[in-house]
Amino acid sequence: MKRTVASTTFGILAVAFASAAFADLKPEEQIEYRQAGYSFMSWNMGKIKANLEGDFSSDQVSKAANAIAAIANSGMGALYGPGTDQNIGEVKTRVKPELFQNGEDVGQLAREFMDAADNLAEIAAEGEKSEVQAAFADLGSACKACHKKYRADN
Amino acid sequence: MKRTVASTTFGILAVAFASAAFADLKPEEQIEYRQAGYSFMSWNMGKIKANLEGDFSSDQVSKAANAIAAIANSGMGALYGPGTDQNIGEVKTRVKPELFQNGEDVGQLAREFMDAADNLAEIAAEGEKSEVQAAFADLGSACKACHKKYRADN
Repeated sequence: MKRTVASTTFGILAVAFASAAFADLKPEEQIEYRQAGYSFMSWNMGKIKANLEGDFSSDQVSKAANAIAAIANSGMGALYGPGTDQNIGEVKTRVKPELFQNGEDVGQLAREFMDAADNLAEIAAEGEKSEVQAAFADLGSACKACHKKYRADN
Repeated sequence: MKRTVASTTFGILAVAFASAAFADLKPEEQIEYRQAGYSFMSWNMGKIKANLEGDFSSDQVSKAANAIAAIANSGMGALYGPGTDQNIGEVKTRVKPELFQNGEDVGQLAREFMDAADNLAEIAAEGEKSEVQAAFADLGSACKACHKKYRADN
């Protein structure tokens, strides 16, 4: 699935939107929810990796890829609202302040990430291990491209 | 989407599977990953609720419902392996021990939950607010049915 620049930018930097519909979400709650999303995607990435390295269950891989793609497309940009660029009490974030200063670049990275996640989900539904291997590597690269620039301790 | 009893039971109580493919996942990691899944579903439930109570964006609701359904279908049963029935250091769990002793009942509740999540995703794709309202209420009931029996502090 391809998406427009407009809709992705909306998803990534939907600060105004976040302020309106989620006025009740505190910055620390936004940080915790976005970390939950990344954590759950990480579990599913791990499952796909284990399948590629061992017994391959196309059903498990497809379900894992679907979860990653649906989370990636859920509008997590709304969880990067004002005040979420720093630790808040016990709630720590590894995001670099630069993420909030480079909307265009972050939007581009996010589009590539969502495209790679959608592609993996489509490929996984077909069940061919070698194809999954390539699509999985592409998705991993898309993850790392953002981590390298905008996540601390990498 | 309907699923068989066998595949759901596999998903819910896949202890043997978990031991094989995820031998590297410690019990505390399993607890953290499952909590991440529930937390992210909770964020998406909140978004749908906000849409039903205010301006209704069928696109946002559909994406939120897709995330919930994909997480629900991702095989979270593998995150209820041995040793995950109690707090582990700083990692706390609200699961009651009874969950691990009532596989058949838990499997039934999980099937109802996944069916309700799939139904909401299908309904949300059609974009009719009144239909979403009903499907959302059904999903909420399915969540609560399990919380009431198997989650502490409710």
